[in-house]
Amino acid sequence: MTRFSDRKGPISLGMVGGGTDAFIGAVHRIAARMDNRYRLVAGALSSTPDRSLASGRALGLPEDRIYPDFEAMAAAEAARPDGIEAVAIVTPNHMHLPPAQAFLAQGIHVICDKPLTGTLPDARALAKAAAQSGALFVLTHNYTGYPMMRAAKAMVAAGRLGALRLVQMEYAQDWLADAAEEKGSKQAEWRTDPARSGAGGAIGDIGTHAFNLMGFVTGLSIEELSADLHRFVEGRRLDDNAQISLRLTGGARGAIWASQVATGCLNGLRMRVYGTLGALEWEQEAPEVLWFSQPGGQRQRLVRGTAAAIAAGETSSRVPAGHPEGYLEGFATIYTEAADAIVAHRSGQHTETLLPTVEDGLAGVAFVDACVRSSAANAAWTRLD
Amino acid sequence: MTRFSDRKGPISLGMVGGGTDAFIGAVHRIAARMDNRYRLVAGALSSTPDRSLASGRALGLPEDRIYPDFEAMAAAEAARPDGIEAVAIVTPNHMHLPPAQAFLAQGIHVICDKPLTGTLPDARALAKAAAQSGALFVLTHNYTGYPMMRAAKAMVAAGRLGALRLVQMEYAQDWLADAAEEKGSKQAEWRTDPARSGAGGAIGDIGTHAFNLMGFVTGLSIEELSADLHRFVEGRRLDDNAQISLRLTGGARGAIWASQVATGCLNGLRMRVYGTLGALEWEQEAPEVLWFSQPGGQRQRLVRGTAAAIAAGETSSRVPAGHPEGYLEGFATIYTEAADAIVAHRSGQHTETLLPTVEDGLAGVAFVDACVRSSAANAAWTRLD
Amino acid sequence: MTRFSDRKGPISLGMVGGGTDAFIGAVHRIAARMDNRYRLVAGALSSTPDRSLASGRALGLPEDRIYPDFEAMAAAEAARPDGIEAVAIVTPNHMHLPPAQAFLAQGIHVICDKPLTGTLPDARALAKAAAQSGALFVLTHNYTGYPMMRAAKAMVAAGRLGALRLVQMEYAQDWLADAAEEKGSKQAEWRTDPARSGAGGAIGDIGTHAFNLMGFVTGLSIEELSADLHRFVEGRRLDDNAQISLRLTGGARGAIWASQVATGCLNGLRMRVYGTLGALEWEQEAPEVLWFSQPGGQRQRLVRGTAAAIAAGETSSRVPAGHPEGYLEGFATIYTEAADAIVAHRSGQHTETLLPTVEDGLAGVAFVDACVRSSAANAAWTRLD
Amino acid sequence: MTRFSDRKGPISLGMVGGGTDAFIGAVHRIAARMDNRYRLVAGALSSTPDRSLASGRALGLPEDRIYPDFEAMAAAEAARPDGIEAVAIVTPNHMHLPPAQAFLAQGIHVICDKPLTGTLPDARALAKAAAQSGALFVLTHNYTGYPMMRAAKAMVAAGRLGALRLVQMEYAQDWLADAAEEKGSKQAEWRTDPARSGAGGAIGDIGTHAFNLMGFVTGLSIEELSADLHRFVEGRRLDDNAQISLRLTGGARGAIWASQVATGCLNGLRMRVYGTLGALEWEQEAPEVLWFSQPGGQRQRLVRGTAAAIAAGETSSRVPAGHPEGYLEGFATIYTEAADAIVAHRSGQHTETLLPTVEDGLAGVAFVDACVRSSAANAAWTRLD
Repeated sequence: MTRFSDRKGPISLGMVGGGTDAFIGAVHRIAARMDNRYRLVAGALSSTPDRSLASGRALGLPEDRIYPDFEAMAAAEAARPDGIEAVAIVTPNHMHLPPAQAFLAQGIHVICDKPLTGTLPDARALAKAAAQSGALFVLTHNYTGYPMMRAAKAMVAAGRLGALRLVQMEYAQDWLADAAEEKGSKQAEWRTDPARSGAGGAIGDIGTHAFNLMGFVTGLSIEELSADLHRFVEGRRLDDNAQISLRLTGGARGAIWASQVATGCLNGLRMRVYGTLGALEWEQEAPEVLWFSQPGGQRQRLVRGTAAAIAAGETSSRVPAGHPEGYLEGFATIYTEAADAIVAHRSGQHTETLLPTVEDGLAGVAFVDACVRSSAANAAWTRLD
Repeated sequence: MTRFSDRKGPISLGMVGGGTDAFIGAVHRIAARMDNRYRLVAGALSSTPDRSLASGRALGLPEDRIYPDFEAMAAAEAARPDGIEAVAIVTPNHMHLPPAQAFLAQGIHVICDKPLTGTLPDARALAKAAAQSGALFVLTHNYTGYPMMRAAKAMVAAGRLGALRLVQMEYAQDWLADAAEEKGSKQAEWRTDPARSGAGGAIGDIGTHAFNLMGFVTGLSIEELSADLHRFVEGRRLDDNAQISLRLTGGARGAIWASQVATGCLNGLRMRVYGTLGALEWEQEAPEVLWFSQPGGQRQRLVRGTAAAIAAGETSSRVPAGHPEGYLEGFATIYTEAADAIVAHRSGQHTETLLPTVEDGLAGVAFVDACVRSSAANAAWTRLD
Repeated sequence: MTRFSDRKGPISLGMVGGGTDAFIGAVHRIAARMDNRYRLVAGALSSTPDRSLASGRALGLPEDRIYPDFEAMAAAEAARPDGIEAVAIVTPNHMHLPPAQAFLAQGIHVICDKPLTGTLPDARALAKAAAQSGALFVLTHNYTGYPMMRAAKAMVAAGRLGALRLVQMEYAQDWLADAAEEKGSKQAEWRTDPARSGAGGAIGDIGTHAFNLMGFVTGLSIEELSADLHRFVEGRRLDDNAQISLRLTGGARGAIWASQVATGCLNGLRMRVYGTLGALEWEQEAPEVLWFSQPGGQRQRLVRGTAAAIAAGETSSRVPAGHPEGYLEGFATIYTEAADAIVAHRSGQHTETLLPTVEDGLAGVAFVDACVRSSAANAAWTRLD
Repeated sequence: MTRFSDRKGPISLGMVGGGTDAFIGAVHRIAARMDNRYRLVAGALSSTPDRSLASGRALGLPEDRIYPDFEAMAAAEAARPDGIEAVAIVTPNHMHLPPAQAFLAQGIHVICDKPLTGTLPDARALAKAAAQSGALFVLTHNYTGYPMMRAAKAMVAAGRLGALRLVQMEYAQDWLADAAEEKGSKQAEWRTDPARSGAGGAIGDIGTHAFNLMGFVTGLSIEELSADLHRFVEGRRLDDNAQISLRLTGGARGAIWASQVATGCLNGLRMRVYGTLGALEWEQEAPEVLWFSQPGGQRQRLVRGTAAAIAAGETSSRVPAGHPEGYLEGFATIYTEAADAIVAHRSGQHTETLLPTVEDGLAGVAFVDACVRSSAANAAWTRLD
C-alpha cells in the first residue's frame, strides 16, 4: 500500500517558487489545470515569506497552506491527512535539490523544472534521492510533450529514417542580446548568475532543452563533444552563445547551437535529423508541423491531428487538426501524463511513460558540465560518460 | 444590487450540452479552466438523461447538480443560494434559444456557442430575451480572441490601412468531403440536418465565423451580397460550399468562400484586408503571425508577444513571444473576458469589451438567411438590413 | 514543301513593338535567347519610326532590317531569301491583330503576347487569319510554361485529383493602387486606356492569365459566370478589380479574383484546385513548388527537378532541383517549344504541343467580354458559348 | 592600347570543358547568353577529342574552332584576328590551372568555375599567373550574383546590423547520400576523386560557396577554425559532410555546415547573420527574399525588385518584383558584370566590381586546406593566414 492509496480524483498539488514575478510558475499552473487533473492547494511561492504570502493569496490558496519556506511546507503537508500528493518545483536551478530532497523524503511526488540542478554534484544527489524515494520524479522538459515530437520519436524508432547520420539542433533567442540583467529583468538576473544558474548560461537554460529533445527523438547519446562557449555581452558572467560539435553513438555526427543573443530569434528551438532513408525537420514556433523527407524529393508535411500524423505515431491531441495547439498544451501533456503515473502509483502500479526522468536530468547537467570543461580547454573533445 | 453581488472568486458555471461524444463541450471546459476563473459545478450535458448522468459523473460533477434537462437545471440552480452564475450552452444550433431563454430569465449569464440560432426568428427571439434580461450574453466567436486579430482590429481602427477597399475571407475544411453524416459521425449528422442546424450548412457552421471576424476586424458591414451555395455530396441536405460576393459599406468590395469539401484543408480560416495605405493577412492555422504590407514592398511579419505586435495593438498573451499560443488560448480569452464582465456585473458595473454580443449573433444569422435567399434566387444581389 | 523548308539552325526572328521603354519586349528577347533557338534579326520596335530606329540600333540589329512600321517589315522580310521565319508581337492589345494578319499572310509564324486582342471581333478575325494561314500562331500565356504547371495538368489528367469540384484562382497585384496612369507610367497608361487595352482592365491584363491557366491545368470550361468589376481609383477608365463566380463544366464551381489594387501584392497569381481524391495548390511567386494534398492529411511538397516531381509529370527543367528556375525560364519554355514546332513545320510536320493557341486566346477574349457584359448587368449570370 | 581595343559588340567566348555530359557547362552557356553580351565561338569541350568535336557540333560551333585540347585552342585563337576575347573554364578542379595559365598567357580573359583549383599550390600558381597577366580573371561564385545577396552586403556595410556577432552558414544537399560514384554518375565520380577534386569533397564542392558567400556579405575573415570532416558513405574517398566552428575577425563567431548526405536537402545554401542591431536570413532556394530582423520583433520580408529592397541595396533585376528570378539569372549577372569589365578593359579602364576574384578563389582553397588539416588533427583549431 502506498501513501496516497486512498486518494481519488484530482491530485492535490503544491508549488515551490512561482510567485508573482515569475514566468515559469504561471506556466506550470496553467499546464496543471489544462486537463483538470490537479488542484493547487499549497505553496511556498517565494524565498521571501511576505511575497510568498501575497502570491498565495493572489492565487486563492487557503491561508494555512501558504508557507514561508519549503521546509515548513514539506513538514506540514506531510502531516496533513489531505496533504499534497505532488509538488511542482519552479525555483532557479540552485534551489531544485533542497526542496526536491525534502518532498521526496516525505514520499511526495516531485515535478521539477529544468535543468535538473545547477551543478553536477547536486544532480547526482538528486538522482540518488529520487532513486531512494518511492515517490515519482518528473522533469519538465516540456518540448517532449509536443505531439509531433512523439511522432518523430516513433518514426525514428520504427526505422522510417534508416540509420541516423546527422542531427542538427539549434535553440536561438535574442532576449539577452543586451545586458538585460543590468536593466531590472529578474529572469535575466538569475539566469546569468553562476550562483543560481550554475556554470552554464545559455547552454544550461536552453542548450539542455535541445540536448534533451535530441536524445528523446533520436535515442542517440553523445560520445564526445567539442564546445565553444562565448559571452558576447560585456560583463556577463555566463555564456550567451554556444556552438557544439557532436560525435554520437552509432557513428552519427551532429551539432548544437544555442544562443540568447541571436537578434530577431524568439524561441527558435529547431531539430533536423537525417538518416539513410529519411529525414525529419521541426521548429518549435510552428510545432504542429513535422516535415518528413525521403530520397528522390518526397517531402511530406505532417500536421498534428490528421490521420497521417496519427499513423506516424502522433499522440495527445486535445482538438482536431487545424485548430493549433501550442506551448501550453505541450507542457500540459507532461503534467497530465505525470497525473496518470501518479494515479497508477496510488495502487502500487508502475507505468511506462515518455516523461523525462531524473536520469535524463542528470544527463543534461553532465552535458552542461562537459561543455563547460571542453570550452575551458579551447573546445577540446570531451567525453560524456 | 445584482443577483450575484455577494459572490467572490471563481464563477460557478453550468453547462448545457457537451456530453461525452461532443467536440465543442470539451473545448469550452478547457477554455473556462485555462485562467482559473470558473468552476464547472452543474450540467445538463445531454438530451438523453442517462447520458447526461454518465457524462456528469465522468466530469466529477456533484450528483445533485447533474440534471436530466436544462429546464430542471435552470429552475434548481436558480433556487440554490450557491447556484450557477453563468451557463455555457454548447448544444446544436436549434437548441440554443430554449435554454438561453430559460437561464436569462433567471438572471443567469449565458455563454453560447455559435451560430446564435438555426433560424432568424429564433435569433430575434434570443436577442430580445437577452435585451430584456439583466444578465450578460456572450457568443463564442472564438477567433476574435486571437491576440493578432485584436492587433488587426486596432491597426484598422488606427488608420494604418487607410481607406479599406477589399476584404477576402475564406474558411476551407475538408471533413465533409464525403458523406460523413452517413458513416456515423455525430458531428456531421447534426451539422447537415436542417432541423438542427437551420437553413445553412457550411455557411452557418463556418461561414458565420468568417462573417463575424470580417466585421470584428474591419468594422465594415455588408450592404448586399450575392451567394452561390452548393451541395457537392449527393444526398446532403445542406450546402457544403458557399461562394459569396460582397458589397460593403464605404464602397469596399469583398468575398467569402466557405467550404467543407476542400480536400486537404483542415481549419483554413483566412483573412486578407486591403486598404489604400496598407494590407493585413492572417491565417488561423498560424495564428501568432499577422502580415502587414505597405506600398513599395514593405512587408512586416508581426508575431504575438513581441514589442512590435504589442505596439500594433496586440493584447492577451499568456506566454512570451515564440512560445506559441493556439486555438484553446484564443477561446479561453473569450471566457476570461466574459469572467471580467461577469465580475464587474456583480457590482452593477458595465464594462466595454471586445466580446461578441447577441447582436453580433443576430447579424450572423441574418447573413446566413440572406445567403440562403440569394442562392435560392440564383445568386441575386440581396440586401442585409 | 513549306516556305522555310531549307532553313537550318536558329530561327530568324523579328519583333513588332518592344522598344526601349517597354517591359515585355525585353522579356520576350531573353526568353527567345535562353535556349539558343532564335536570332533576333529584324524589328519594327515602335510605332514612332525614330524610336524604332534607336531601339533597333541599341539591340544591334542590321540597319536595313530596322523598319519604321510592321507593314514595311512584313513586306520586306517576306521578300528576302533570309527573311524572318517568325515574328514576336509585343505591342499593346489593340495592335495585335494588324501585324498578326500581315505576317500570317506572308506565311511567317507569329508569337504574340496576351491577351489575344482588345476586342472580341478582333479576336475572331485573328483566329480566322491564323486558321487560314499555313503558319503557326503561339500566344505567350507564359505561366503555362512553368514545369510545375505541367505537372499539375498531368496530375489532373491522370485522375490523381478524382472528380474536380472547386477551382480558386486569384491574381493580385498592387501596381495600379493609385493613379499611376496620371504619373507618367507608360505601362499604366495603355493598360487603363480602353482604346488600347479593350473593354477589360485588370480582367484583361491579368484575369486572362488566371482564366487561361485554370483551363490549361484543369481542362474545365466556364459554363456561366457572374462578374463584379470595379474601379477603385477615381478617374480610371477600366476595372482595376474583378470578382467572378464560376459555374464550370462537370458541375464544378469556382472563382477568379483579379486585382491591381491589392496593396502589398506583387504578382500574386495563385491556383487551388480541389477534387474528390486530391487537391493542388500553387503560387507563381514560388513557382518551383506544387502542393498535393490527399484526404487524411496527406500533404506533399513537390519540387521541380526532383524524381517525385518528374514522376508526377513535370517537364522542361534546365537546372537540377534546388537551383530555382523562375519567370524567365517559364517564358523561355514557351519560346523553345514554339521553336520545336517551327522546326517540325519546316518539313511539313505537325506536332502536338502544350502551347497556348489562337483558340485559347479567343476564349480568353470571350471571357473578358462575358465579364464586362455580366458586370454591366449587375453581375448577372452570363453564359460563355 | 590593349589586345582587344578594337573589338565592339558581344564578346567572343571560348569554352574549355562543358561537353555533352556536363552540368555546369550548359549553365555557363545560358548565363553568358542571358543578356546578349557574349557569342560562344570556340571550344575544347572535352578531354576526349572525339567528344569535343561532337559537343562542338551539337552547339553549332564552326568546325575550325572546335579544338581537341585547350593548348591547341589557346594557340590558335590567340593567332586569329577574330580570336576569342574570353574563355570559360568549366572542367573539374584539377584542370583549372593549366588552361587558365595558357589563356592568361595569351592575354585572353578567364572566367573560371569554382573552386579555384584542387590544391593550394595550384591556387597560388593561378593567383600568380593572373597577377602577371594583363587579362581579367573572374571566378564564378555565382551565388554572389543574387540581387538579395548584394542587398545583404550593402546592409551590412551600411551598419544596419550593427557589430556582427554570429554567422551561421549551411549548405546541405543529398545527392551523394549513397555511393552515386559507383553507379555511373559522372558528376559524382570526379567530385569524389581526390585526383580531380583535390583534398576536399563536400567542403571543396559546396563548402567553398558557403565560405565565399559569408565573406562577400559580411566582410569578415576566419581567424581560426575547427573542422570535423566525415565520410558517411563506405568506400568514399573524400568527405561528404563537414561541420566547422569559426572564430572570425572582430570577435564574431560562426559555423559552416556543408553536407552532401543530408537526405531531402536539394541545394540548401543558407545564410544567417546576427549583429547587435539587426539580423539577416536568406535561403538560396527562395532567393528573392531576404529577411531583416531588428530587436523587439521587427521583422521585414524584403523582396527583390520592390522599392524597399532597392533602397536596401538590391541591384541587377531583369524583371519586376514578383516575377521570380532564380539561379540562372544570378549566374548570368556574374557573366554580365564580367562583360562590363571586359568592355572597360578594351580601352584600358579598370572598373571596380563585385565579381569574385582570383584572390577570393585562393582564400577558398586555403580554407579547404585548413579544414582538411584541422580535421586530420582531430578538429584542432587551425589558423588561416
